[in-house]
Amino acid sequence: MTRGIFLAFEGIDASGKSTQARRVAAEHDALLTFEPGDTALGAQLRIGLLDARTTMSPSSEALFMLADRAHHISSVIEPALLAGRHVVSDRFLASTLAYQGYGRGVDLDLLESATRLAVSDCRPDLTILLDLPVEVAATRRARSARDRFESSDDEFHIRVRDGFLSLARQDPSNWLVVDATLSQSDVAQRIDDGLQRFAWTS
Amino acid sequence: MTRGIFLAFEGIDASGKSTQARRVAAEHDALLTFEPGDTALGAQLRIGLLDARTTMSPSSEALFMLADRAHHISSVIEPALLAGRHVVSDRFLASTLAYQGYGRGVDLDLLESATRLAVSDCRPDLTILLDLPVEVAATRRARSARDRFESSDDEFHIRVRDGFLSLARQDPSNWLVVDATLSQSDVAQRIDDGLQRFAWTS
Repeated sequence: MTRGIFLAFEGIDASGKSTQARRVAAEHDALLTFEPGDTALGAQLRIGLLDARTTMSPSSEALFMLADRAHHISSVIEPALLAGRHVVSDRFLASTLAYQGYGRGVDLDLLESATRLAVSDCRPDLTILLDLPVEVAATRRARSARDRFESSDDEFHIRVRDGFLSLARQDPSNWLVVDATLSQSDVAQRIDDGLQRFAWTS
Repeated sequence: MTRGIFLAFEGIDASGKSTQARRVAAEHDALLTFEPGDTALGAQLRIGLLDARTTMSPSSEALFMLADRAHHISSVIEPALLAGRHVVSDRFLASTLAYQGYGRGVDLDLLESATRLAVSDCRPDLTILLDLPVEVAATRRARSARDRFESSDDEFHIRVRDGFLSLARQDPSNWLVVDATLSQSDVAQRIDDGLQRFAWTS
């Protein structure tokens, strides 16, 4: 059985990544999953983590995200890939590095080690970054209610965006960066072109 | 304000550590706490982790424990110590190294890095290990219902016990090893003697 292909969509809130992740998963008959929280145990956790009233240290937040990820991999992602199913994840390990590392200042080396503990060798074949300037995201977000992550300040989101771009620059053959200020259909077209170059034409 | 003293009790199940932790905390007016789960978020997690029906990879288990610990430190332990309160924890970081590292084979170097992320410099002033041969523990445990950890096999518990002893040997000035086959009152006496040598006579 050929192992499935594993795609991750990343980006700051309001970048449109969830919409594109859903579309790509549907068009390629892939399993659509998300982090944090797409397991029974993770769902409980997600409620606590996203609750704006929860105060948590950045390293604790990072470890909960990584724990959820490790559980998510062994119970959802890896079994699907082994069964030949493609998997599309709405956020994956780059989010932990960008949000808790670049964004909240958790030591990046310790975070990388903890990440290795969490993901082992289950890494996305391609990570698609929907890159959006923070001021555009802020305008989009103003239209909807904010949870704890979304209510953080602009400086934080700028560090997160820059973190994603740094990660993409460090590993260009495994990342596709798409300008998320484009129209939804243009964004979709660029993603599909990127996937085709990535030889994923199934 | 003088910082409080931080004690951790460790040992395999049925070693009597919870009884001794409770007693020492009461006699020294210390805050008694436990892991995993002594926070609102951790309590939800504890239910999932200890449920015998939950299947989880060892590294995921380790990360959940560390995440719980980081949250426990910032929300419970560190504020108490800063306020001058002594703290007694029933299990702490050695349990993660012994159970998930030595016991379940999670890479010890990665686990140490993740541990640094979780605890930063909040480490026990003294860790008290109630050391018990696994066959004695098995006899004691046979009398009570077993949860997921307790139902693991003897080989596993032997690795965990040896792990605790290794950790104690690596850092003898911060560990007190007590023979837990002794009577409860003798165990108590040895702990109190050790605490006195440790200059904790308050």
